[in-house]
Amino acid sequence: MMPDWIAVDWGTSNLRVWAMGPQGVLAEAQSDDGMGKLAQDGFEPALRRLIAPWLAAGGVPVVACGMVGARQGWQEAPYRAVPCAPVARGEGIAVSANGLNIRIIPGLCQGKPADVMRGEETQIAGVLALHPQFDGVICLPGTHSKWAHVSAGEVVSFQTYMTGEMFALLSGQSVLRHSMAGNGWDEAAFDAGAAEGLSRPERMMARLFSLRAEGLLAGLEPSAARARLSGLLIGAELAAARPYWLGQRVVLVGGAALQASYARALATQGVTAETLDATACTLAGLAAARP
Amino acid sequence: MMPDWIAVDWGTSNLRVWAMGPQGVLAEAQSDDGMGKLAQDGFEPALRRLIAPWLAAGGVPVVACGMVGARQGWQEAPYRAVPCAPVARGEGIAVSANGLNIRIIPGLCQGKPADVMRGEETQIAGVLALHPQFDGVICLPGTHSKWAHVSAGEVVSFQTYMTGEMFALLSGQSVLRHSMAGNGWDEAAFDAGAAEGLSRPERMMARLFSLRAEGLLAGLEPSAARARLSGLLIGAELAAARPYWLGQRVVLVGGAALQASYARALATQGVTAETLDATACTLAGLAAARP
Repeated sequence: MMPDWIAVDWGTSNLRVWAMGPQGVLAEAQSDDGMGKLAQDGFEPALRRLIAPWLAAGGVPVVACGMVGARQGWQEAPYRAVPCAPVARGEGIAVSANGLNIRIIPGLCQGKPADVMRGEETQIAGVLALHPQFDGVICLPGTHSKWAHVSAGEVVSFQTYMTGEMFALLSGQSVLRHSMAGNGWDEAAFDAGAAEGLSRPERMMARLFSLRAEGLLAGLEPSAARARLSGLLIGAELAAARPYWLGQRVVLVGGAALQASYARALATQGVTAETLDATACTLAGLAAARP
Repeated sequence: MMPDWIAVDWGTSNLRVWAMGPQGVLAEAQSDDGMGKLAQDGFEPALRRLIAPWLAAGGVPVVACGMVGARQGWQEAPYRAVPCAPVARGEGIAVSANGLNIRIIPGLCQGKPADVMRGEETQIAGVLALHPQFDGVICLPGTHSKWAHVSAGEVVSFQTYMTGEMFALLSGQSVLRHSMAGNGWDEAAFDAGAAEGLSRPERMMARLFSLRAEGLLAGLEPSAARARLSGLLIGAELAAARPYWLGQRVVLVGGAALQASYARALATQGVTAETLDATACTLAGLAAARP
Protein backbone atom coordinates (compact mmCIF):
# COMPACT_ATOMS: atom_id res chain seq x y z
CA MET A 1 0.00 0.00 0.00
CA MET A 2 1.27 3.40 -0.99
CA PRO A 3 -0.49 6.41 0.56
CA ASP A 4 -0.44 9.84 -1.03
CA TRP A 5 -0.07 11.36 2.41
CA ILE A 6 -0.53 10.59 6.09
CA ALA A 7 -2.99 12.38 8.35
CA VAL A 8 -2.15 12.71 12.06
CA ASP A 9 -4.37 13.86 14.94
CA TRP A 10 -2.08 14.13 17.95
CA GLY A 11 -3.79 15.28 21.10
CA THR A 12 -2.88 15.31 24.76
CA SER A 13 -4.06 11.74 25.36
CA ASN A 14 -4.03 9.93 22.02
CA LEU A 15 -2.25 9.64 18.69
CA ARG A 16 -4.30 8.68 15.62
CA VAL A 17 -2.94 8.25 12.10
CA TRP A 18 -4.51 7.57 8.70
CA ALA A 19 -2.92 6.48 5.41
CA MET A 20 -4.69 8.59 2.79
CA GLY A 21 -5.20 7.74 -0.90
CA PRO A 22 -7.03 9.55 -3.68
CA GLN A 23 -10.37 8.15 -2.52
CA GLY A 24 -9.80 8.73 1.17
CA VAL A 25 -8.69 6.50 4.02
CA LEU A 26 -6.60 3.42 3.06
CA ALA A 27 -5.69 2.36 6.57
CA GLU A 28 -5.63 3.74 10.09
CA ALA A 29 -3.93 3.14 13.43
CA GLN A 30 -3.81 4.66 16.88
CA SER A 31 -2.02 4.50 20.20
CA ASP A 32 -2.19 6.18 23.57
CA ASP A 33 1.12 7.98 22.97
CA GLY A 34 -0.52 11.35 23.56
CA MET A 35 1.55 14.54 23.72
CA GLY A 36 0.93 14.65 27.46
CA LYS A 37 3.06 11.63 28.21
CA LEU A 38 5.92 12.12 25.73
CA ALA A 39 9.29 13.77 26.31
CA GLN A 40 10.94 15.67 23.47
CA ASP A 41 12.76 12.59 22.14
CA GLY A 42 9.64 10.41 22.36
CA PHE A 43 7.61 11.92 19.52
CA GLU A 44 9.48 10.56 16.51
CA PRO A 45 9.59 6.92 17.73
CA ALA A 46 5.92 7.08 18.77
CA LEU A 47 4.92 8.26 15.29
CA ARG A 48 7.21 5.82 13.45
CA ARG A 49 5.77 2.90 15.41
CA LEU A 50 2.40 3.58 13.81
CA ILE A 51 3.28 4.78 10.30
CA ALA A 52 6.41 2.72 9.49
CA PRO A 53 4.52 0.30 7.19
CA TRP A 54 3.36 3.24 5.07
CA LEU A 55 6.79 4.82 4.61
CA ALA A 56 8.35 2.25 2.29
CA ALA A 57 8.55 4.70 -0.58
CA GLY A 58 10.00 7.49 1.59
CA GLY A 59 9.10 11.14 1.45
CA VAL A 60 5.37 10.66 2.04
CA PRO A 61 4.02 13.97 3.35
CA VAL A 62 2.68 13.82 6.90
CA VAL A 63 0.30 16.51 8.18
CA ALA A 64 -0.42 16.70 11.93
CA CYS A 65 -2.72 18.76 14.11
CA GLY A 66 -3.32 19.05 17.85
CA MET A 67 -1.30 19.49 21.00
CA VAL A 68 1.76 18.03 19.25
CA GLY A 69 2.35 21.66 18.20
CA ALA A 70 2.19 23.10 21.72
CA ARG A 71 5.19 24.63 23.47
CA GLN A 72 5.60 21.37 25.41
CA GLY A 73 4.94 19.28 22.27
CA TRP A 74 7.26 18.02 19.56
CA GLN A 75 7.84 21.37 17.94
CA GLU A 76 6.03 24.59 18.73
CA ALA A 77 3.74 25.78 15.94
CA PRO A 78 3.03 29.37 17.06
CA TYR A 79 -0.62 30.39 17.20
CA ARG A 80 -2.14 32.37 14.34
CA ALA A 81 -4.34 35.25 15.53
CA VAL A 82 -8.01 35.49 14.57
CA PRO A 83 -9.63 36.78 12.47
CA CYS A 84 -8.02 34.42 9.95
CA ALA A 85 -8.74 31.28 7.93
CA PRO A 86 -8.77 28.26 10.27
CA VAL A 87 -5.82 26.71 8.43
CA ALA A 88 -3.64 28.09 5.65
CA ARG A 89 -2.48 25.64 3.01
CA GLY A 90 1.25 24.98 3.27
CA GLU A 91 1.75 27.06 6.41
CA GLY A 92 2.36 24.06 8.66
CA ILE A 93 5.56 24.13 10.70
CA ALA A 94 8.16 21.68 9.34
CA VAL A 95 9.68 19.30 11.87
CA SER A 96 13.21 18.06 11.45
CA ALA A 97 12.90 14.28 11.91
CA ASN A 98 15.47 12.11 10.13
CA GLY A 99 13.92 12.17 6.70
CA LEU A 100 10.29 12.25 7.77
CA ASN A 101 8.46 14.93 5.84
CA ILE A 102 6.12 16.25 8.53
CA ARG A 103 4.29 19.51 9.09
CA ILE A 104 2.32 20.62 12.14
CA ILE A 105 -0.71 22.88 11.77
CA PRO A 106 -0.62 25.96 14.05
CA GLY A 107 -3.40 26.56 16.54
CA LEU A 108 -5.36 29.80 16.75
CA CYS A 109 -5.30 32.52 19.39
CA GLN A 110 -7.47 35.49 20.27
CA GLY A 111 -6.34 38.49 22.27
CA LYS A 112 -9.50 39.67 23.93
CA PRO A 113 -11.04 37.76 25.53
CA ALA A 114 -7.85 35.70 25.66
CA ASP A 115 -8.34 32.25 24.19
CA VAL A 116 -6.48 29.53 22.34
CA MET A 117 -7.21 26.34 20.40
CA ARG A 118 -5.09 23.53 18.96
CA GLY A 119 -6.75 20.87 16.86
CA GLU A 120 -10.20 22.41 16.63
CA GLU A 121 -8.98 24.86 13.94
CA THR A 122 -8.44 21.79 11.75
CA GLN A 123 -11.97 20.52 12.39
CA ILE A 124 -13.32 23.97 11.59
CA ALA A 125 -11.35 23.91 8.33
CA GLY A 126 -12.96 20.52 7.73
CA VAL A 127 -16.44 21.98 8.15
CA LEU A 128 -15.54 24.66 5.59
CA ALA A 129 -14.15 22.00 3.24
CA LEU A 130 -17.37 19.98 3.52
CA HIS A 131 -19.63 23.10 3.36
CA PRO A 132 -17.60 25.66 1.40
CA GLN A 133 -20.06 28.53 1.82
CA PHE A 134 -20.62 27.96 5.54
CA ASP A 135 -21.45 31.07 7.50
CA GLY A 136 -22.48 30.72 11.11
CA VAL A 137 -21.36 29.13 14.34
CA ILE A 138 -19.46 25.90 14.91
CA CYS A 139 -19.63 24.28 18.33
CA LEU A 140 -17.10 21.58 19.19
CA PRO A 141 -18.22 20.06 22.49
CA GLY A 142 -15.69 18.13 24.56
CA THR A 143 -13.26 18.39 27.44
CA HIS A 144 -12.81 22.03 26.46
CA SER A 145 -15.81 22.98 24.35
CA LYS A 146 -15.15 25.59 21.69
CA TRP A 147 -17.63 27.92 20.05
CA ALA A 148 -16.40 29.63 16.88
CA HIS A 149 -18.05 32.27 14.77
CA VAL A 150 -17.12 31.65 11.13
CA SER A 151 -17.78 34.05 8.28
CA ALA A 152 -16.36 34.48 4.76
CA GLY A 153 -13.99 31.53 5.28
CA GLU A 154 -12.47 32.99 8.45
CA VAL A 155 -12.75 32.35 12.17
CA VAL A 156 -13.96 35.70 13.45
CA SER A 157 -13.97 34.93 17.19
CA PHE A 158 -14.12 31.98 19.50
CA GLN A 159 -14.68 31.05 23.15
CA THR A 160 -13.67 28.03 25.24
CA TYR A 161 -15.74 26.45 28.03
CA MET A 162 -14.24 23.88 30.42
CA THR A 163 -17.53 22.01 30.58
CA GLY A 164 -16.27 18.51 29.87
CA GLU A 165 -13.35 18.78 32.26
CA MET A 166 -15.63 20.22 34.95
CA PHE A 167 -18.02 17.30 34.50
CA ALA A 168 -15.17 14.80 34.78
CA LEU A 169 -13.80 16.44 37.94
CA LEU A 170 -17.16 16.88 39.65
CA SER A 171 -18.56 13.46 38.76
CA GLY A 172 -15.32 11.58 39.34
CA GLN A 173 -13.42 13.37 42.08
CA SER A 174 -15.68 15.66 44.10
CA VAL A 175 -18.08 14.74 46.89
CA LEU A 176 -20.72 14.36 44.15
CA ARG A 177 -19.07 11.13 42.98
CA HIS A 178 -20.80 9.28 45.82
CA SER A 179 -24.17 10.19 44.30
CA MET A 180 -23.48 9.29 40.67
CA ALA A 181 -21.61 5.99 40.54
CA GLY A 182 -21.82 3.97 37.34
CA ASN A 183 -22.58 5.14 33.83
CA GLY A 184 -26.37 5.32 33.98
CA TRP A 185 -28.20 8.10 32.19
CA ASP A 186 -31.65 9.59 32.73
CA GLU A 187 -32.69 11.75 29.81
CA ALA A 188 -35.46 13.54 31.71
CA ALA A 189 -32.98 14.49 34.43
CA PHE A 190 -30.62 15.84 31.78
CA ASP A 191 -33.43 17.96 30.36
CA ALA A 192 -34.33 19.32 33.79
CA GLY A 193 -30.70 20.19 34.51
CA ALA A 194 -30.22 21.83 31.13
CA ALA A 195 -33.38 23.89 31.53
CA GLU A 196 -32.21 25.09 34.93
CA GLY A 197 -28.66 25.81 33.76
CA LEU A 198 -29.99 27.73 30.77
CA SER A 199 -32.61 29.77 32.57
CA ARG A 200 -30.73 30.49 35.81
CA PRO A 201 -27.00 30.04 35.17
CA GLU A 202 -26.21 32.38 38.05
CA ARG A 203 -27.65 29.76 40.40
CA MET A 204 -25.47 26.90 39.17
CA MET A 205 -23.05 27.22 42.09
CA ALA A 206 -26.01 26.65 44.40
CA ARG A 207 -27.42 23.67 42.51
CA LEU A 208 -24.42 21.35 42.49
CA PHE A 209 -24.47 20.25 46.12
CA SER A 210 -28.21 19.60 45.87
CA LEU A 211 -27.34 16.54 43.81
CA ARG A 212 -25.55 15.08 46.83
CA ALA A 213 -28.24 16.16 49.28
CA GLU A 214 -31.07 14.73 47.15
CA GLY A 215 -29.14 11.47 46.97
CA LEU A 216 -28.90 11.35 50.76
CA LEU A 217 -32.39 12.61 51.58
CA ALA A 218 -34.63 11.63 48.71
CA GLY A 219 -32.91 8.65 47.10
CA LEU A 220 -32.05 10.48 43.86
CA GLU A 221 -30.86 7.75 41.47
CA PRO A 222 -27.19 7.88 40.39
CA SER A 223 -28.28 7.89 36.73
CA ALA A 224 -30.47 10.94 37.37
CA ALA A 225 -27.80 12.74 39.40
CA ARG A 226 -25.21 12.13 36.70
CA ALA A 227 -27.44 13.30 33.86
CA ARG A 228 -28.68 16.34 35.79
CA LEU A 229 -25.10 17.42 36.52
CA SER A 230 -24.32 17.15 32.80
CA GLY A 231 -27.46 19.12 32.01
CA LEU A 232 -26.66 21.86 34.53
CA LEU A 233 -23.15 22.33 33.15
CA ILE A 234 -24.14 22.21 29.49
CA GLY A 235 -27.08 24.50 30.21
CA ALA A 236 -24.78 26.99 31.93
CA GLU A 237 -22.38 26.79 28.98
CA LEU A 238 -25.21 27.47 26.54
CA ALA A 239 -26.39 30.41 28.66
CA ALA A 240 -22.90 31.92 28.58
CA ALA A 241 -22.56 31.16 24.86
CA ARG A 242 -25.94 32.70 23.96
CA PRO A 243 -24.32 35.54 21.96
CA TYR A 244 -22.79 32.84 19.76
CA TRP A 245 -25.82 30.74 18.91
CA LEU A 246 -28.73 33.16 19.14
CA GLY A 247 -30.24 33.53 15.67
CA GLN A 248 -27.34 31.70 14.02
CA ARG A 249 -26.87 28.60 11.93
CA VAL A 250 -25.19 26.12 14.31
CA VAL A 251 -23.12 23.05 13.43
CA LEU A 252 -22.05 20.60 16.14
CA VAL A 253 -18.79 18.72 15.59
CA GLY A 254 -18.02 15.96 18.08
CA GLY A 255 -18.86 12.51 19.37
CA ALA A 256 -22.41 11.24 18.86
CA ALA A 257 -23.52 11.19 22.52
CA LEU A 258 -22.29 14.69 23.31
CA GLN A 259 -23.68 16.04 20.03
CA ALA A 260 -27.07 14.61 20.94
CA SER A 261 -26.99 16.25 24.39
CA TYR A 262 -26.09 19.66 22.98
CA ALA A 263 -28.63 19.36 20.18
CA ARG A 264 -31.34 18.44 22.69
CA ALA A 265 -30.59 21.44 24.89
CA LEU A 266 -30.32 23.81 21.93
CA ALA A 267 -33.64 22.56 20.55
CA THR A 268 -35.37 23.85 23.70
CA GLN A 269 -34.17 27.31 22.63
CA GLY A 270 -35.53 26.96 19.12
CA VAL A 271 -32.14 26.18 17.57
CA THR A 272 -31.98 23.19 15.22
CA ALA A 273 -28.31 22.29 15.16
CA GLU A 274 -26.75 20.32 12.30
CA THR A 275 -24.21 17.65 13.20
CA LEU A 276 -20.98 16.56 11.53
CA ASP A 277 -18.74 13.65 12.46
CA ALA A 278 -15.60 14.80 14.29
CA THR A 279 -13.18 12.44 12.52
CA ALA A 280 -14.57 13.32 9.10
CA CYS A 281 -13.99 17.01 9.90
CA THR A 282 -10.46 16.36 11.16
CA LEU A 283 -9.52 14.47 7.97
CA ALA A 284 -11.11 17.08 5.69
CA GLY A 285 -9.26 19.81 7.60
CA LEU A 286 -5.91 18.02 7.42
CA ALA A 287 -6.45 17.52 3.68
CA ALA A 288 -7.13 21.23 3.32
CA ALA A 289 -3.83 22.01 5.04
CA ARG A 290 -1.65 19.73 2.86
CA PRO A 291 1.18 21.56 1.14
CA MET B 1 -5.64 16.79 84.94
CA MET B 2 -9.31 16.07 85.22
CA PRO B 3 -11.58 17.52 82.51
CA ASP B 4 -15.28 18.12 83.06
CA TRP B 5 -15.92 16.93 79.55
CA ILE B 6 -14.21 16.33 76.22
CA ALA B 7 -15.02 18.20 73.02
CA VAL B 8 -14.53 16.41 69.68
CA ASP B 9 -14.60 17.84 66.15
CA TRP B 10 -14.42 14.83 63.82
CA GLY B 11 -14.52 15.70 60.17
CA THR B 12 -13.77 13.84 56.96
CA SER B 13 -10.04 14.57 57.09
CA ASN B 14 -9.14 15.33 60.71
CA LEU B 15 -9.92 14.50 64.31
CA ARG B 16 -9.49 17.25 66.94
CA VAL B 17 -10.13 16.86 70.67
CA TRP B 18 -10.12 19.24 73.63
CA ALA B 19 -10.11 18.53 77.37
CA MET B 20 -12.55 21.08 78.80
CA GLY B 21 -12.57 22.51 82.32
CA PRO B 22 -14.77 25.14 84.00
CA GLN B 23 -12.67 27.96 82.48
CA GLY B 24 -12.40 26.43 79.03
CA VAL B 25 -9.69 24.45 77.26
CA LEU B 26 -7.27 22.52 79.51
CA ALA B 27 -5.48 20.62 76.75
CA GLU B 28 -5.94 19.70 73.12
CA ALA B 29 -4.76 17.13 70.60
CA GLN B 30 -5.37 16.18 66.99
CA SER B 31 -4.64 13.55 64.39
CA ASP B 32 -5.40 12.89 60.75
CA ASP B 33 -7.71 10.00 61.60
CA GLY B 34 -10.59 11.64 59.75
CA MET B 35 -13.88 9.82 59.21
CA GLY B 36 -12.98 9.42 55.55
CA LYS B 37 -10.18 6.96 56.22
CA LEU B 38 -11.66 4.92 59.09
CA ALA B 39 -13.55 1.62 58.92
CA GLN B 40 -16.29 0.92 61.43
CA ASP B 41 -13.91 -0.65 63.94
CA GLY B 42 -11.35 2.13 63.62
CA PHE B 43 -13.23 4.96 65.33
CA GLU B 44 -12.92 3.90 68.96
CA PRO B 45 -9.16 3.21 68.85
CA ALA B 46 -8.56 6.48 66.96
CA LEU B 47 -10.42 8.43 69.63
CA ARG B 48 -8.84 6.61 72.56
CA ARG B 49 -5.36 7.25 71.18
CA LEU B 50 -5.95 10.98 71.66
CA ILE B 51 -8.09 11.17 74.80
CA ALA B 52 -6.73 8.25 76.88
CA PRO B 53 -4.74 10.54 79.21
CA TRP B 54 -7.94 12.40 80.11
CA LEU B 55 -10.04 9.36 80.93
CA ALA B 56 -8.36 8.30 84.19
CA ALA B 57 -11.45 9.05 86.23
CA GLY B 58 -13.77 7.23 83.82
CA GLY B 59 -17.19 8.38 82.71
CA VAL B 60 -16.07 11.76 81.41
CA PRO B 61 -18.74 12.92 78.93
CA VAL B 62 -17.54 13.24 75.34
CA VAL B 63 -19.46 15.36 72.83
CA ALA B 64 -18.61 15.05 69.13
CA CYS B 65 -19.73 16.79 65.97
CA GLY B 66 -19.01 16.37 62.27
CA MET B 67 -18.91 13.60 59.71
CA VAL B 68 -18.37 11.04 62.47
CA GLY B 69 -22.19 11.00 62.62
CA ALA B 70 -22.68 10.28 58.91
CA ARG B 71 -24.10 7.02 57.59
CA GLN B 72 -20.55 5.91 56.78
CA GLY B 73 -19.25 7.24 60.11
CA TRP B 74 -19.02 5.67 63.55
CA GLN B 75 -22.72 5.76 64.29
CA GLU B 76 -25.36 7.52 62.21
CA ALA B 77 -26.89 10.54 63.91
CA PRO B 78 -29.96 11.15 61.73
CA TYR B 79 -30.42 14.68 60.42
CA ARG B 80 -32.83 17.04 62.16
CA ALA B 81 -34.98 19.04 59.73
CA VAL B 82 -34.95 22.83 59.66
CA PRO B 83 -36.49 25.05 60.87
CA CYS B 84 -35.07 24.04 64.25
CA ALA B 85 -32.46 25.05 66.80
CA PRO B 86 -28.97 24.26 65.46
CA VAL B 87 -28.35 21.83 68.31
CA ALA B 88 -30.67 20.57 71.05
CA ARG B 89 -29.12 20.02 74.47
CA GLY B 90 -28.92 16.32 75.31
CA GLU B 91 -30.21 15.13 71.93
CA GLY B 92 -26.86 13.74 70.82
CA ILE B 93 -26.86 10.11 69.69
CA ALA B 94 -25.19 7.82 72.26
CA VAL B 95 -22.48 5.54 70.94
CA SER B 96 -21.87 2.18 72.52
CA ALA B 97 -18.09 2.11 73.05
CA ASN B 98 -16.81 -0.02 75.92
CA GLY B 99 -17.52 2.39 78.72
CA LEU B 100 -16.83 5.60 76.81
CA ASN B 101 -19.65 8.06 77.44
CA ILE B 102 -19.92 9.65 74.00
CA ARG B 103 -22.66 11.47 72.14
CA ILE B 104 -22.68 12.60 68.52
CA ILE B 105 -24.53 15.76 67.50
CA PRO B 106 -26.94 15.24 64.58
CA GLY B 107 -26.52 17.28 61.42
CA LEU B 108 -29.32 19.33 59.84
CA CYS B 109 -31.27 18.72 56.67
CA GLN B 110 -33.61 20.75 54.50
CA GLY B 111 -36.15 19.32 52.10
CA LYS B 112 -36.44 21.98 49.44
CA PRO B 113 -34.02 22.91 48.10
CA ALA B 114 -32.43 19.66 49.32
CA ASP B 115 -29.43 20.32 51.53
CA VAL B 116 -27.51 18.85 54.46
CA MET B 117 -24.83 19.90 56.95
CA ARG B 118 -22.79 18.04 59.57
CA GLY B 119 -20.53 20.03 61.86
CA GLU B 120 -21.60 23.51 60.79
CA GLU B 121 -24.78 23.25 62.91
CA THR B 122 -22.45 23.12 65.93
CA GLN B 123 -20.60 26.24 64.83
CA ILE B 124 -23.92 27.98 64.28
CA ALA B 125 -24.94 26.97 67.81
CA GLY B 126 -21.63 28.47 68.92
CA VAL B 127 -22.45 31.79 67.27
CA LEU B 128 -25.77 31.80 69.14
CA ALA B 129 -24.00 30.93 72.41
CA LEU B 130 -21.56 33.80 71.90
CA HIS B 131 -24.27 36.22 70.65
CA PRO B 132 -27.52 34.98 72.25
CA GLN B 133 -29.83 37.41 70.47
CA PHE B 134 -28.27 36.88 67.05
CA ASP B 135 -30.64 37.37 64.15
CA GLY B 136 -29.27 37.35 60.64
CA VAL B 137 -27.10 35.30 58.35
CA ILE B 138 -24.12 33.10 59.16
CA CYS B 139 -21.69 32.23 56.38
CA LEU B 140 -19.24 29.39 56.95
CA PRO B 141 -16.81 29.45 54.01
CA GLY B 142 -14.77 26.35 53.25
CA THR B 143 -14.66 23.23 51.08
CA HIS B 144 -18.44 23.32 51.11
CA SER B 145 -19.48 26.83 52.08
CA LYS B 146 -22.73 27.09 54.00
CA TRP B 147 -25.05 30.07 54.29
CA ALA B 148 -27.62 29.88 57.04
CA HIS B 149 -30.47 32.21 57.89
CA VAL B 150 -30.88 32.28 61.68
CA SER B 151 -33.81 33.83 63.51
CA ALA B 152 -35.29 33.46 67.02
CA GLY B 153 -32.68 30.84 67.91
CA GLU B 154 -33.48 28.62 64.93
CA VAL B 155 -31.90 27.83 61.59
CA VAL B 156 -34.64 28.87 59.18
CA SER B 157 -32.97 27.79 55.92
CA PHE B 158 -29.53 27.12 54.53
CA GLN B 159 -27.66 26.60 51.27
CA THR B 160 -24.39 24.87 50.40
CA TYR B 161 -21.90 25.99 47.73
CA MET B 162 -19.06 23.72 46.58
CA THR B 163 -16.77 26.72 46.13
CA GLY B 164 -13.75 25.46 48.07
CA GLU B 165 -13.81 22.04 46.48
CA MET B 166 -14.23 23.57 43.03
CA PHE B 167 -11.21 25.81 43.65
CA ALA B 168 -9.13 22.82 44.78
CA LEU B 169 -10.12 20.75 41.74
CA LEU B 170 -9.65 23.53 39.19
CA SER B 171 -6.39 24.90 40.61
CA GLY B 172 -4.89 21.51 41.39
CA GLN B 173 -6.19 19.05 38.82
CA SER B 174 -7.59 20.80 35.76
CA VAL B 175 -5.68 22.29 32.83
CA LEU B 176 -5.63 25.55 34.83
CA ARG B 177 -3.05 24.06 37.22
CA HIS B 178 -0.33 24.83 34.64
CA SER B 179 -1.13 28.53 34.97
CA MET B 180 -1.26 28.83 38.77
CA ALA B 181 1.63 26.84 40.24
CA GLY B 182 2.79 27.79 43.73
CA ASN B 183 0.91 29.56 46.47
CA GLY B 184 1.29 33.16 45.37
CA TRP B 185 -1.57 35.60 45.80
CA ASP B 186 -2.41 38.85 44.04
CA GLU B 187 -5.07 40.81 45.92
CA ALA B 188 -5.92 43.06 42.97
CA ALA B 189 -6.51 40.00 40.80
CA PHE B 190 -8.78 38.54 43.47
CA ASP B 191 -10.78 41.77 43.53
CA ALA B 192 -11.11 41.78 39.73
CA GLY B 193 -12.26 38.16 39.72
CA ALA B 194 -14.73 38.72 42.54
CA ALA B 195 -16.19 41.78 40.82
CA GLU B 196 -16.66 39.81 37.62
CA GLY B 197 -18.12 36.78 39.39
CA LEU B 198 -20.52 39.00 41.31
CA SER B 199 -21.66 41.13 38.44
CA ARG B 200 -21.82 38.49 35.69
CA PRO B 201 -22.05 35.07 37.34
CA GLU B 202 -23.69 33.66 34.22
CA ARG B 203 -20.41 34.23 32.39
CA MET B 204 -18.26 32.29 34.86
CA MET B 205 -18.16 29.19 32.65
CA ALA B 206 -16.67 31.36 29.93
CA ARG B 207 -14.08 33.04 32.15
CA LEU B 208 -12.25 30.02 33.54
CA PHE B 209 -10.29 28.98 30.45
CA SER B 210 -9.22 32.61 29.94
CA LEU B 211 -6.92 32.13 32.91
CA ARG B 212 -5.01 29.50 30.94
CA ALA B 213 -5.08 31.47 27.71
CA GLU B 214 -3.85 34.67 29.38
CA GLY B 215 -1.03 32.66 30.91
CA LEU B 216 0.00 31.38 27.48
CA LEU B 217 -0.53 34.59 25.50
CA ALA B 218 -0.01 37.46 27.89
CA GLY B 219 2.21 36.05 30.64
CA LEU B 220 -0.45 36.23 33.36
CA GLU B 221 1.40 35.58 36.63
CA PRO B 222 0.52 32.37 38.50
CA SER B 223 -0.26 34.40 41.63
CA ALA B 224 -2.70 36.54 39.66
CA ALA B 225 -4.30 33.55 37.93
CA ARG B 226 -4.73 31.75 41.25
CA ALA B 227 -6.25 34.75 43.02
CA ARG B 228 -8.51 35.61 40.09
CA LEU B 229 -9.86 32.05 40.00
CA SER B 230 -10.63 32.29 43.71
CA GLY B 231 -12.30 35.66 43.15
CA LEU B 232 -14.40 34.38 40.25
CA LEU B 233 -15.67 31.41 42.26
CA ILE B 234 -16.33 33.36 45.46
CA GLY B 235 -17.95 36.14 43.44
CA ALA B 236 -20.23 33.62 41.73
CA GLU B 237 -21.10 32.12 45.12
CA LEU B 238 -21.96 35.54 46.49
CA ALA B 239 -24.10 36.30 43.43
CA ALA B 240 -26.04 33.07 43.95
CA ALA B 241 -26.27 33.71 47.71
CA ARG B 242 -27.51 37.28 47.30
CA PRO B 243 -30.96 36.46 48.76
CA TYR B 244 -29.10 35.42 51.92
CA TRP B 245 -26.90 38.43 52.55
CA LEU B 246 -28.77 41.32 50.95
CA GLY B 247 -29.79 43.73 53.71
CA GLN B 248 -28.83 41.28 56.46
CA ARG B 249 -26.44 41.20 59.39
CA VAL B 250 -23.70 38.78 58.25
CA VAL B 251 -21.26 36.83 60.43
CA LEU B 252 -18.37 34.91 58.83
CA VAL B 253 -17.16 31.80 60.66
CA GLY B 254 -13.99 30.21 59.30
CA GLY B 255 -10.24 30.43 58.82
CA ALA B 256 -8.67 33.89 58.77
CA ALA B 257 -7.57 33.95 55.12
CA LEU B 258 -10.90 32.79 53.73
CA GLN B 259 -12.82 35.10 56.07
CA ALA B 260 -10.75 38.02 54.77
CA SER B 261 -11.49 37.10 51.14
CA TYR B 262 -15.23 36.84 51.73
CA ALA B 263 -15.29 40.04 53.80
CA ARG B 264 -13.43 41.88 51.04
CA ALA B 265 -15.85 40.76 48.36
CA LEU B 266 -18.91 41.47 50.53
CA ALA B 267 -17.58 44.94 51.33
CA THR B 268 -17.81 45.83 47.63
CA GLN B 269 -21.55 45.20 47.97
CA GLY B 270 -21.90 47.44 51.00
CA VAL B 271 -22.00 44.57 53.48
CA THR B 272 -19.75 44.85 56.54
CA ALA B 273 -19.38 41.29 57.74
CA GLU B 274 -18.44 40.46 61.32
CA THR B 275 -15.99 37.60 61.85
CA LEU B 276 -15.78 34.87 64.48
CA ASP B 277 -13.07 32.27 64.98
CA ALA B 278 -14.15 28.85 63.74
CA THR B 279 -12.65 26.86 66.61
CA ALA B 280 -14.17 29.17 69.22
CA CYS B 281 -17.58 28.64 67.61
CA THR B 282 -17.11 24.85 67.48
CA LEU B 283 -16.23 24.70 71.18
CA ALA B 284 -19.07 27.00 72.20
CA GLY B 285 -21.47 24.91 70.15
CA LEU B 286 -20.25 21.61 71.60
CA ALA B 287 -20.63 23.11 75.09
CA ALA B 288 -24.19 24.11 74.26
CA ALA B 289 -24.95 20.52 73.25
CA ARG B 290 -23.59 18.87 76.43
CA PRO B 291 -26.15 16.71 78.20
